[in-house]
Amino acid sequence: MLTRPDVAVVGAGPVGLAIAWRCAQRGLRVVVHDPAPGSGASHVAAGMLSPVAEAYFGEHVLTGLLAASAARWPAFAAELAEAVGTGFGYRTEGTIVVGLTGDDLAEARRLWSYQQGLGLPITPLRPSELRDREPALALRVRGGAVAPGDHQVDPRRLVGALRAAAEKAGATLVPDAVGALSDVDAGVTVVAAGCGAAALTGLPVRPVKGQVLRLRAPGGDPPGFRHVIRGYADGESVYLVPRGSGEVVVGATVEERGDTAVTAGAVLRLLRAAVGLVPELAEYDLAEASAGLRPGTPDNAPILGPLPGQPGVLAATGHHRHGIVLTPVTADLITELIVTGEGNPLLTPFTPDRFTGDPHGPGPFAGARTPGPAGPEPTSEEDRWN
Amino acid sequence: MLTRPDVAVVGAGPVGLAIAWRCAQRGLRVVVHDPAPGSGASHVAAGMLSPVAEAYFGEHVLTGLLAASAARWPAFAAELAEAVGTGFGYRTEGTIVVGLTGDDLAEARRLWSYQQGLGLPITPLRPSELRDREPALALRVRGGAVAPGDHQVDPRRLVGALRAAAEKAGATLVPDAVGALSDVDAGVTVVAAGCGAAALTGLPVRPVKGQVLRLRAPGGDPPGFRHVIRGYADGESVYLVPRGSGEVVVGATVEERGDTAVTAGAVLRLLRAAVGLVPELAEYDLAEASAGLRPGTPDNAPILGPLPGQPGVLAATGHHRHGIVLTPVTADLITELIVTGEGNPLLTPFTPDRFTGDPHGPGPFAGARTPGPAGPEPTSEEDRWN
Repeated sequence: MLTRPDVAVVGAGPVGLAIAWRCAQRGLRVVVHDPAPGSGASHVAAGMLSPVAEAYFGEHVLTGLLAASAARWPAFAAELAEAVGTGFGYRTEGTIVVGLTGDDLAEARRLWSYQQGLGLPITPLRPSELRDREPALALRVRGGAVAPGDHQVDPRRLVGALRAAAEKAGATLVPDAVGALSDVDAGVTVVAAGCGAAALTGLPVRPVKGQVLRLRAPGGDPPGFRHVIRGYADGESVYLVPRGSGEVVVGATVEERGDTAVTAGAVLRLLRAAVGLVPELAEYDLAEASAGLRPGTPDNAPILGPLPGQPGVLAATGHHRHGIVLTPVTADLITELIVTGEGNPLLTPFTPDRFTGDPHGPGPFAGARTPGPAGPEPTSEEDRWN
Repeated sequence: MLTRPDVAVVGAGPVGLAIAWRCAQRGLRVVVHDPAPGSGASHVAAGMLSPVAEAYFGEHVLTGLLAASAARWPAFAAELAEAVGTGFGYRTEGTIVVGLTGDDLAEARRLWSYQQGLGLPITPLRPSELRDREPALALRVRGGAVAPGDHQVDPRRLVGALRAAAEKAGATLVPDAVGALSDVDAGVTVVAAGCGAAALTGLPVRPVKGQVLRLRAPGGDPPGFRHVIRGYADGESVYLVPRGSGEVVVGATVEERGDTAVTAGAVLRLLRAAVGLVPELAEYDLAEASAGLRPGTPDNAPILGPLPGQPGVLAATGHHRHGIVLTPVTADLITELIVTGEGNPLLTPFTPDRFTGDPHGPGPFAGARTPGPAGPEPTSEEDRWN
C-alpha cells in the first residue's frame, strides 16, 4: 500500500467485507485487515434471514432493523450475484415454525401473536397444511405457521462472494492481525471484528457461544425438506436449514461462555430436537459439529456508528445472532456515514454512545447518549419499527 | 527381504501383530503386510477385556475362549510392557453393569443369572453399593452388578506397543496391500486381515459396522469414574470406558452394513444412553465420532486355523466384537500350530472347516467338519467352557 487508504476495515467477516465492497464501489481506497477471513462467527452461522422468526418480546427496535435489512436482501443478493457471477445459497422458500408437543405449540403461539401484533407476515397452518408443505415433518408435530419472507443464505459461500466482490471493486485484503487501532493508518477505521472489537475499542462486546451441527443427506441426495424449519421440541428451540448440497444445518445453543469446545450435552440436545421434528434426519451423516462465538451486546442489538472520543473510528460489531441478516443494512448505513458524514436515522438506536455514558444511568435505549448523527423522523415503510 | 520368510502375516491389527511378535520370539523369520497398520476395527474399538459382560445366551463355547484369553491378559500385558517399556492403557478396575430403569434392570438380571450359571464372576450390588463405587452414576440407576475380572486396554496404544515388540523381536513390517494369497511367498501365511479376509479366502466374514464416540473430560481432568460402565438405558445397551488421559469411549452400535458413515441417529442414541447413565458426561467435549467394521461371522465366533484346500495358509480372523480380548489366545494358539504343527484342542470349535463343508449340513458346531488338529479332551481350568 503506497498511499494511505481512505478506509481501513478490521475484520473480514460478512459485515466487514460488505462494508469494504460498498465503500470500494463508491471510489474509496479500502484495505481490509484479517489474518483469517471468514473464520469467525460466520463460519459456524446457519445463515437464516429471519426478521419474523427472530422477533422476540421486548426487542421491537432490533426487529425493525432486522426487517429493514431483510427487505434489502433480495436486491443485495441480486447485485452480489451479478458482481461475482456465482451463487451463495440464497433461497427464498421461507421458514416454517412448528411446535412438537402441545406445550411447545402454546409457547410458539404466544410468539406468533406478538409477531402478528407487530404486523410481521406469519400465518398459522393446520397440521394437514403443514404436512402438505413439508411431508418430512414428524406426525407428532402438533401445529405450526409459515413466515414466507424469512429466507436463507449459506454464510461460508457468502463470505467467498463478498470477498471476491470487494476485491473486484478495488479493495485490498491484508492478512494481518490488528493489535491496536493506533496501528491502523487510514482516513476512517471501521471495527468489524466481531468479538475482537472488545479488546480494540473497549465496547461491551462479549462472546456468546453457539454450537451447531452439519448433517448430510445420504447418497448425495438433497435434504427431504425445502423450507427452513424452526421448531420448539420438548422445550428445546432448534432450527434446521436445508441446503441444495444435501447439507442440513442444525442449531444452535446460546451459551454465555467464550470457549469453542463441542460438548456431548449440546450435541445430544440438538440431535434429539432435530430428529424429533424430522425423523429422517436420524439416517443423515453427522458431517460436522462445531462451535462459534457470536459478538453479543448488553441489549442484544448491534453497535453501529462513531466511537466516542476516537475521531475517525466507526464500530460495526455486536451483531450477535443476526450478523448475516444485518449485513446489507450495516454495509449501506456505515458506507453512507463514511461518504456523507451524516448518520441515517436508522442508526440512531444502535450507536456506540449508548454504552459509553454513565454506567449507572438509564437503560440502553433511553437518553444517556451523546448527540450522534441526527436525521429526520422515520417516514419510510422500512423505518416503522423505530 | 532377501530370504523367503517362515511366516507372512497379512494384516497389522492387534491379532496379526501379536502373532508376528510371538512367532518372531520363537526365532521365525516374520513379515507383516499392511499398508495402514492399526487402521481397521482396532482403531475404533473400545478395548474392553470382558469375558463376563460379553457372555451372551447361546454363545457358551465362545464365552469359554473369551475367558481363556482374558485369563492370559495379565501375563500378556506384563510381558508386552516389559518388552517395549511403555504402557498401553491396561487397567484392572473391573466393569460395573447397570440398568437405568426397572425394565433395563430386569433385562440385565436375566443375563447375570445366565453368566452366574456359567460360573462367571459377577456380583449384584445394591444401588447404594453401586453409588459408593461410582458416585458419578445417575440417581435414577435402579441397580447393577460388578464383574471384577472384566478389564480394559487402549487398542490404539496396544497396536503401537505390539508393533514395537514385533519389530524388536525381529519381525519386518512391509507397507503393501496383499491382493491375493498367491502374491505371498512364505512358509506359512496367516490371514489376519479382519474384514479383508473374505476376499482373500472366501471365508464368510462380513463387515458389522460399529459407531463409537470419544468424549473428553473438560480441563484435562481424568473422567469422573474409574470402572468400565456397561449399561442398559431405556432399551439401549451402551458402554463407557474411562481412560487416564481423560477420554471416555462410548460405544457402540451393531449394524449390518459395510459403510463407515457416522449418522445422526446413532450419535443421538449413544449420547442419550451415556448421559442418562452418567449425567456429567453432558459437560464433556465430543472429541471424536467414528465408525469401524468388525469382522463378523455366521456364528459370531472367530475363525482360527488351517484353511481347507490351501496348504500353508492359516486363518486368524472373524473376531467380531472380541478382537482385543482374544488377541493373546489367538496369538498363542496360532503360533503353537505353526511351531509344532499340532492344533491345541482350544482351537477345535473355531477352525475354518466349519464353514467350508456342506452348506446345507448341520450347524457350525456340529459334525460336518473335516478332521482338524486333534488333541486330548479339555482338562485344564481354562478349558471347562468347551
